[in-house]
Amino acid sequence: MREVFQQSLREVQDRLVEIAELVEESIQKATTAFSHSDVALAEQVIDGDEEVERRVASLDDLSIDILARQQPVASDLRLMVGALRMSASLERMSDLAGHIAQLARYRYPESAVPSGLTDIFLRMGEVDVVMAGKLVELLRTQEPRTIAEIRDLDDDLDELHARVFEKVLSNKLSDNPTGVVDATLASRYHERFGDHAVDIAKYVEYFLGGELR
Amino acid sequence: MREVFQQSLREVQDRLVEIAELVEESIQKATTAFSHSDVALAEQVIDGDEEVERRVASLDDLSIDILARQQPVASDLRLMVGALRMSASLERMSDLAGHIAQLARYRYPESAVPSGLTDIFLRMGEVDVVMAGKLVELLRTQEPRTIAEIRDLDDDLDELHARVFEKVLSNKLSDNPTGVVDATLASRYHERFGDHAVDIAKYVEYFLGGELR
Repeated sequence: MREVFQQSLREVQDRLVEIAELVEESIQKATTAFSHSDVALAEQVIDGDEEVERRVASLDDLSIDILARQQPVASDLRLMVGALRMSASLERMSDLAGHIAQLARYRYPESAVPSGLTDIFLRMGEVDVVMAGKLVELLRTQEPRTIAEIRDLDDDLDELHARVFEKVLSNKLSDNPTGVVDATLASRYHERFGDHAVDIAKYVEYFLGGELR
Repeated sequence: MREVFQQSLREVQDRLVEIAELVEESIQKATTAFSHSDVALAEQVIDGDEEVERRVASLDDLSIDILARQQPVASDLRLMVGALRMSASLERMSDLAGHIAQLARYRYPESAVPSGLTDIFLRMGEVDVVMAGKLVELLRTQEPRTIAEIRDLDDDLDELHARVFEKVLSNKLSDNPTGVVDATLASRYHERFGDHAVDIAKYVEYFLGGELR
């Protein structure tokens, strides 16, 4: 039974890694679409979100099936519950990539990036992409070092988020309310993207023997 | 065993109702704090979020414990997984109420509500509060009619959210970037609050025999 469970677990892990890879691709495309007003790329991200949703639903079915058939207890049970939580976070990350892409599409052929904020948003996009890559690595290898790296990247993101507001509130965009709205939303989406990555990292840490809260 | 499970289920349900009641109180206070720049009330909401977090964590422990000890299968298992999901949504709703309260606190003694948007935000707050009340009712009674009501209220919220952007983008706030940022964030918080209520309603619907996706 134990061996069957280990096999199931490996299957769950593989699928989490695959979904995380799709999210990485998504946020990469979304941030490029946002910075370069690439509407075709934006459409790809928005369409790709459905694929992530399908895979998350199918993984959740598998997890519930494992819970039912193999009735794991103790740490194995917590692992399965954790898988359900992590899949939900990955789904939200994909949604947020979609929201960023949508901002690019709404403003096309104009740019969704208000002038003066190009560099900050380029940097936010880079941090998101690196973070998503680290998440793939963490889910694949369970390397504890990666958890600290994800937390550090999230700190960078929070700092950039604060800088966006500073710029926006410094009145430099006062003739451009659309720019203020776009910057506020985009920055919030990036920040939430990072929060979900940290949530997933926390779950992995917890399973590696740390404490969840 | 079946009877023990029914008893555990009742305990989970009671706790979900209690947490939903706290969320209802929270959003009520948060929207009042936001509209009336009541900083003391805002502090209460922010402090109250910890209590919700504690209760959610304790409910999740109970759910995992039930999964481990009673190893439910089929619909009972899905019910327990659903409880874990619903508690996560309630926790986010409490966070969002906290975010709304925080906007009021940040701007104090100024108002966080930009002029010209007072009515829309009053209405958004009212809809949120009614929605939270309906959610308590739904979790307590599983009355299907309540699910449709929650969806309708969410539609109202989406419409109000769109109207906020319309107003904000109509350039009337062009001398007030802080107002644009606050309105954008507050409106987004209200909208997400509604989305989470709908997510919970969907889970209840699913357990009552409908389809989840």
